[in-house]
Amino acid sequence: MSLTQFSIIDSTLREGEQFYGANFSSEDRLEIAQSLNNFGVEYIEVTSPCVSPQSRQDCQQIARLGLHSKILTHIRCNLEDAKIAVDTGVDGINLFFGTSSLLRQFGHGKSIPQILEIATEVITFIHEQSPATELRFSTEDSFRSELSDLLRVYLTIDSLGIIKRFGIADTVGIATPNQVFNLVQILRQSTDKDIEFHAHNDTGCAIANSYSALEAGATHIDTTVLGIGERNGITPLAGLIARLYTLDPETLSRKYHLHELLNLHQLVANRVGIPIPANHYIIGEASFCHKAGIHTQAILNNSKTYEAIDPDDFGLTRSFLLNHKLTGKHAIAYRAQQLGLNLDSSQIQSITQKIKTLADQQQLTPAHVDEILQSSFIQLTVNS
Amino acid sequence: MSLTQFSIIDSTLREGEQFYGANFSSEDRLEIAQSLNNFGVEYIEVTSPCVSPQSRQDCQQIARLGLHSKILTHIRCNLEDAKIAVDTGVDGINLFFGTSSLLRQFGHGKSIPQILEIATEVITFIHEQSPATELRFSTEDSFRSELSDLLRVYLTIDSLGIIKRFGIADTVGIATPNQVFNLVQILRQSTDKDIEFHAHNDTGCAIANSYSALEAGATHIDTTVLGIGERNGITPLAGLIARLYTLDPETLSRKYHLHELLNLHQLVANRVGIPIPANHYIIGEASFCHKAGIHTQAILNNSKTYEAIDPDDFGLTRSFLLNHKLTGKHAIAYRAQQLGLNLDSSQIQSITQKIKTLADQQQLTPAHVDEILQSSFIQLTVNS
Repeated sequence: MSLTQFSIIDSTLREGEQFYGANFSSEDRLEIAQSLNNFGVEYIEVTSPCVSPQSRQDCQQIARLGLHSKILTHIRCNLEDAKIAVDTGVDGINLFFGTSSLLRQFGHGKSIPQILEIATEVITFIHEQSPATELRFSTEDSFRSELSDLLRVYLTIDSLGIIKRFGIADTVGIATPNQVFNLVQILRQSTDKDIEFHAHNDTGCAIANSYSALEAGATHIDTTVLGIGERNGITPLAGLIARLYTLDPETLSRKYHLHELLNLHQLVANRVGIPIPANHYIIGEASFCHKAGIHTQAILNNSKTYEAIDPDDFGLTRSFLLNHKLTGKHAIAYRAQQLGLNLDSSQIQSITQKIKTLADQQQLTPAHVDEILQSSFIQLTVNS
Repeated sequence: MSLTQFSIIDSTLREGEQFYGANFSSEDRLEIAQSLNNFGVEYIEVTSPCVSPQSRQDCQQIARLGLHSKILTHIRCNLEDAKIAVDTGVDGINLFFGTSSLLRQFGHGKSIPQILEIATEVITFIHEQSPATELRFSTEDSFRSELSDLLRVYLTIDSLGIIKRFGIADTVGIATPNQVFNLVQILRQSTDKDIEFHAHNDTGCAIANSYSALEAGATHIDTTVLGIGERNGITPLAGLIARLYTLDPETLSRKYHLHELLNLHQLVANRVGIPIPANHYIIGEASFCHKAGIHTQAILNNSKTYEAIDPDDFGLTRSFLLNHKLTGKHAIAYRAQQLGLNLDSSQIQSITQKIKTLADQQQLTPAHVDEILQSSFIQLTVNS
């Protein structure tokens, strides 16, 4: 699997708008698009221009910004929506149609032949109006669709010779990594077009499933910042970056401005009005915090012992937590040295025990630990 | 894969205490243990009694509560720690030893033969002192260890005939689902003992990797509430439950008190002092929120269209968000009906457009939407 070839389609401005707390203003949308561009995602997907008057204006405006990231919009597969989308000047249009029996019966109500008829009409229309528009066609709820229906739909539409990219969507977040690998591999063997994968995260496998899709030959992965989207969302951008970084840090560092990852997350969290979870991938506050004595000891010798990701590559720093009962003598010795306090190993041992016992009784702060170290040092100096 | 056989080892009170924000008091520990027991995890792992005086007392007290969940503690593999652990009265002791060259060189400094010598001594000692104690031996950093070293360690220790369970740990969170499957499968073919898997989540694959371990024959999975732990933590309990529930809801509902999941999470979040992320698995506020018009329309016909998990099974409810620009006429019609307002489809269409346009300009609340519906109804009634 080569990571040089794949592209990220970030959908914070489309799927992300479907998150329960998100209600982006025009200004939010422009700033988030700029920030995604600064990070370097290859594509930015924005909400359908058919959704509301302002959404239409914003879609047009983002398409005109001249960003390095290509701008896509995501519309229902019908002529009415297509006519509006073509006029926005976006680089590409993402079409989708539910193919599972559940969505066909209780959603749009169309049969597979009807889906093919409508999709053919819409795709042909867009291509005639705007031949340069990059077109994607995705089945929705692909993992609850019959394989025969999926292949019939993909192959019939492929034969039009217009579609640049096919999409597979785990719409309710149920697929396992093996299921994703198998379906993507079948599609990879059936077409030479690009393959996009969209993973909902209801069962926590969105990142692993996206990785599995790439292993099977997918070329494009959908993400959102913080994983926001319908229900509990889709593949979080930072999680996908973490996954791929550990496999090939050089390529990832060349493709994306990794130092922008935190800014991008802070902006989106702020505009959605949610905190960044402390244990979010890479940019969460806890990601490079080392706490247990056994961990801090090893990290002080070689950071690779307990870090798969180098915080430097993201403009971040690691930290050692000393103010708790799990602390260890090596971490305390390191802090004493930082403070310029010359203490021998039995002194460090006894100070470590003191800190552990105090932490049993109260919430210690890092300042407390420094005070204990400094006052122990003074006492020991006076006594000697 | 049968889900009736596997067990959860919840480590919120051990790995979770290594989370940067966690500093549990004795009262916290007792309450969390009770709540884990109420949910029904098979095992509760608590911090080593060697860590601090209070940790030792708390370990003893939790072991004496007579909970249905078995109590384990997790200690370094040395005689000093083992002596203290045996005295606590826990049901089982989890031993670990770093086997990767990084941990051997920069962590504990022991060679593979030294590891085997020490482990043999410690295991034999514990077994002599307390034959009923359920013993687990885990390699640490298994996925950066040489396979030959791992097998030598596991097979030599297995030949003692004492160990009940072997552990595999993805200590820095780098393994992929395939790597986990392969390693667990090799161990499964090499021993008839139970196999435990411990997955860090640095690259977002902890849930998928845990599932992969079960597919390959693992019997025990480590979790923590909210996934808290060193750095960004391990397999989140609710995520594992979500993953397994979609495969076999009946078995999961029989094994665990799913209605207790939210209480447990609220308790731990409160004691750690962090909010539950809105998009956390199952119990996050957003998990059963439906927003886009196309989704709400289908859900109103059949909730399975866009829900892989039934909120009822967890004592939770779904909600429809109407106060935004992505809303649709079916959702608005549903709300009108709930409010007892008799509006025809063209009236609903025009009210939907009005709400979308207003949402472009301001942050609407659900109360706003109701007001718009009610005042439109009154106006239409007056005009007719």
